[in-house]
Amino acid sequence: MTSSNRLYLFDTTLRDGAQTQGVDFTVADKVAIARELDRLGIDYIEGGWPGANPTDDRFFADPPEFQNAKFVAFGMTRRAGRSAANDPGLNAILQTKARNVCMVGKTWDFHVDVALELDRTEYLEMIADSIAHAKGRMDEVMFDAEHFFDGYKANPDYALACLHAAEKAGARWLVLCDTNGGTMPHEIERIVGEVCARIPGEKIGIHTHNDTENAVANTLAAVRAGARQVQGTINGLGERCGNANMISLIANLVIKMGYETGLKDGALQRLTHLSRLLDDRLNVPTNRSAAYVGTRAFAHKGGLHVSAVEKDPKTYEHVDPEMVGNQRIIVVSDQAGRSNIMARFRQIGLEVDPKDPAVARLLEIVKEREAEGYAYDGADASFELLARHELHTVPDYFALQSFRVLVERRVNARGQLIAMSEATVKLDVAGHRAMEVGEGNGPVNALDAALRKALVPVYPELADMRLVDFKVRILDSAGGTAATTRVMIESGDAKGRRWSTIGVSPNIVDASYNALYDAITYKLFRDGATPATERAASA
Amino acid sequence: MTSSNRLYLFDTTLRDGAQTQGVDFTVADKVAIARELDRLGIDYIEGGWPGANPTDDRFFADPPEFQNAKFVAFGMTRRAGRSAANDPGLNAILQTKARNVCMVGKTWDFHVDVALELDRTEYLEMIADSIAHAKGRMDEVMFDAEHFFDGYKANPDYALACLHAAEKAGARWLVLCDTNGGTMPHEIERIVGEVCARIPGEKIGIHTHNDTENAVANTLAAVRAGARQVQGTINGLGERCGNANMISLIANLVIKMGYETGLKDGALQRLTHLSRLLDDRLNVPTNRSAAYVGTRAFAHKGGLHVSAVEKDPKTYEHVDPEMVGNQRIIVVSDQAGRSNIMARFRQIGLEVDPKDPAVARLLEIVKEREAEGYAYDGADASFELLARHELHTVPDYFALQSFRVLVERRVNARGQLIAMSEATVKLDVAGHRAMEVGEGNGPVNALDAALRKALVPVYPELADMRLVDFKVRILDSAGGTAATTRVMIESGDAKGRRWSTIGVSPNIVDASYNALYDAITYKLFRDGATPATERAASA
Repeated sequence: MTSSNRLYLFDTTLRDGAQTQGVDFTVADKVAIARELDRLGIDYIEGGWPGANPTDDRFFADPPEFQNAKFVAFGMTRRAGRSAANDPGLNAILQTKARNVCMVGKTWDFHVDVALELDRTEYLEMIADSIAHAKGRMDEVMFDAEHFFDGYKANPDYALACLHAAEKAGARWLVLCDTNGGTMPHEIERIVGEVCARIPGEKIGIHTHNDTENAVANTLAAVRAGARQVQGTINGLGERCGNANMISLIANLVIKMGYETGLKDGALQRLTHLSRLLDDRLNVPTNRSAAYVGTRAFAHKGGLHVSAVEKDPKTYEHVDPEMVGNQRIIVVSDQAGRSNIMARFRQIGLEVDPKDPAVARLLEIVKEREAEGYAYDGADASFELLARHELHTVPDYFALQSFRVLVERRVNARGQLIAMSEATVKLDVAGHRAMEVGEGNGPVNALDAALRKALVPVYPELADMRLVDFKVRILDSAGGTAATTRVMIESGDAKGRRWSTIGVSPNIVDASYNALYDAITYKLFRDGATPATERAASA
Repeated sequence: MTSSNRLYLFDTTLRDGAQTQGVDFTVADKVAIARELDRLGIDYIEGGWPGANPTDDRFFADPPEFQNAKFVAFGMTRRAGRSAANDPGLNAILQTKARNVCMVGKTWDFHVDVALELDRTEYLEMIADSIAHAKGRMDEVMFDAEHFFDGYKANPDYALACLHAAEKAGARWLVLCDTNGGTMPHEIERIVGEVCARIPGEKIGIHTHNDTENAVANTLAAVRAGARQVQGTINGLGERCGNANMISLIANLVIKMGYETGLKDGALQRLTHLSRLLDDRLNVPTNRSAAYVGTRAFAHKGGLHVSAVEKDPKTYEHVDPEMVGNQRIIVVSDQAGRSNIMARFRQIGLEVDPKDPAVARLLEIVKEREAEGYAYDGADASFELLARHELHTVPDYFALQSFRVLVERRVNARGQLIAMSEATVKLDVAGHRAMEVGEGNGPVNALDAALRKALVPVYPELADMRLVDFKVRILDSAGGTAATTRVMIESGDAKGRRWSTIGVSPNIVDASYNALYDAITYKLFRDGATPATERAASA
């Protein structure tokens, strides 16, 4: 029996991934991630569990317009003792802007007996009427068969009966979930094969977890055995050991195994970007060893390999890194460092003669700075300023003499505990010394306010500049509060431009100042502002 | 044809793992790791490549006494144009205290043609005489068949000819290496099956890489197809995306698939320790999501699960965590329900009547705090203090009146640009008002110094307390520098205890103070310190 080659990709980063310890998506985070998934051509985006938490309520009340994906609400089959129509949890997931739901239910008799304490036959009816009730109101209804593999091993007839109940009631997909994550790939392959033989029509989906480090392999095995919907999360985000990594799944299923999907042209090349997007949103370090998209995934270390790689990359690379938006890195090699830097120059539109001594100097400076904690990957504007500074093509717009920032917590006159910040800056601009004070919620906020007071009158271009994002990372944190701090700032302006800058120092306020300085300088440079020092001279 | 159930475990952490970017094992590191592997009952320990670097030269000149493991030197087949006896690289690996060698050679015709530029038949002779030469001097010789799967797909006859050459010359093991890491599990299974049919006698080994996130699954597939030597590294350490993770391999092969090994009694329970040992040696953070041994591997979040887990762990755990030396964790979450909170109380040893109104109050407080940005998942000590405070079981050890923190950047008398921080605290303790000043690299460092000055004289228990880790996360960062800041601090003391606390505020220094306050209070509570307020009263 042949089956079609078309797989349906179902992303649950915003639902199952969101359950991870320490993960708190804001509505803005969910919108950004969902938009990118839709843009790539993912078939289903499970946005969360409306009714279970306020963030999901807001997200589902006003989701983005999707061009490609079906937007899915997750929920549970109805509780005992209520009809489907009167189950508030079920109603909550049927009354949002989503037109598709994925409902989880038990398929392991042990769970029905012990965890739910219900009659098994009654439970089959609960599955059936929940699905039927939803089917009357949604475009598509799916059934997440929880603990399916444990359930099938214990009592295959009951597990299949649960699937049949959902199928007959109108479920489009029956998703077999390895909820505890303990099933081995060969077992998955056997069981999925048996289920597909009993339930034809390409309705079987697969949802695995990484508790034995086999989530991806389990999914591949299920697909080979007939599953056609594939669930996963970006970067394998998920509780305990994570979910199946959607990025590895896509690369493996499409590039290695030749399956078709709904992915748009260019989607594969955006996989690296997708991975970094989630890291940025969660403010977590990138997993450098991630398959396909890790920064080290195509890093060749000196010695045996390097000359072979350069003769023919196929000798040491299993795929072309650019297929997934990644790049080859050759480490411990001046020659390769040089080609990396030249490529960066081209990327930012800098015409540089490779023989210009500034190139070698810049390479040295970047290496030193990166050893101190700078990371120019995510701070394009700081890198460009560094390069232009070495090439003498960016002027100094002002010169900081000093700043002083005060943070205070005390009880005010009304007996309330307050925390406030005040900053004073002294800088030279337009031929005079400016001294201004500003206040704010916190030290960096106050410093920014003081700087603007001093600079906007001289550089009106700065008036529409605003801080969009602010990230702090402590490096060498094993040193406690005496560690190095890296601050990255993203700025924006009324022209819709965005640029990222970086500052590093053991002192977080100092690091923030460095990032702010670059942000301001970059804005003035891009706007072609005349340095006030020149104005003073010609006045 | 039946094969035996006995697998041979071959650890290459100290050789292939050592090639990872950023990894530098000292001889002491290698000794410690090798001793632990030997103690567990690993069959082969590949210690490195003598002759290739000074550390390995020293390690192989004076290795530990092994009780169980065979100590293996890694190297290469001889180079062209020299006899095996006159190849210095080959000699180097045969002249150490190791009695076993594993030699790598090509099996992909493409590599022999393009990378080595040699005649294919001549290369077969090079394999054969290198192995034979070693066999005359060693107890056991093994052949690492580099790029085997790519080689077999391109030209199976040549790949097999290379294996036969090594086998006939006396190799005990022929290890099929997926060097580029790009082979899929079903391909591994097919190819290993075909090779085992052509080369009987249980001589086939498997060595995989994680470039498609299938290293573990590929190894399991190879074993099912007849491979009997299994190569891997602790924690999957290795270049690019890593090697097969020996810890996941052992747990899967022994616990799940029932194979026999040379592992000693109690070895499985030491797997978590083995994982942490390597992290400590490399001074890297533990991978919290690692299968089996990650700190989160058995962490249960979310109301649905928790009551079920407590009724019967088999409902939600695929193995008993204690089998691998790990433990179950129940976390408090924003999806916290009553059963989560009660479970947390039990875990921290708090006896609480479920009907105590404090429980409902606490649930409300946790939800509100989490909406403000608190995350109690990773801040156990702050949660405990919150709970105890509601239950009135933790005293106030001191009362902060105010603090003032100054951060300054200026040019000092010697014309150097400096950034410094100074903090003043006013607090009431032991019946008097203490006012102290401290300085540090940054604002939080300075505040910590001032607090200690004020408190250690009254509470000597605080003298051995130190800050171990410090993390900052900006929430709602789309607000730029006016966002909410969450600070998490991990503290430690001389008793080896660790505890995590959290503080939230729009002001980063204020948030840090809150986390510090909880850290100090928790330490004093755990040490049973007498609140100085009482001391003053009874004085």
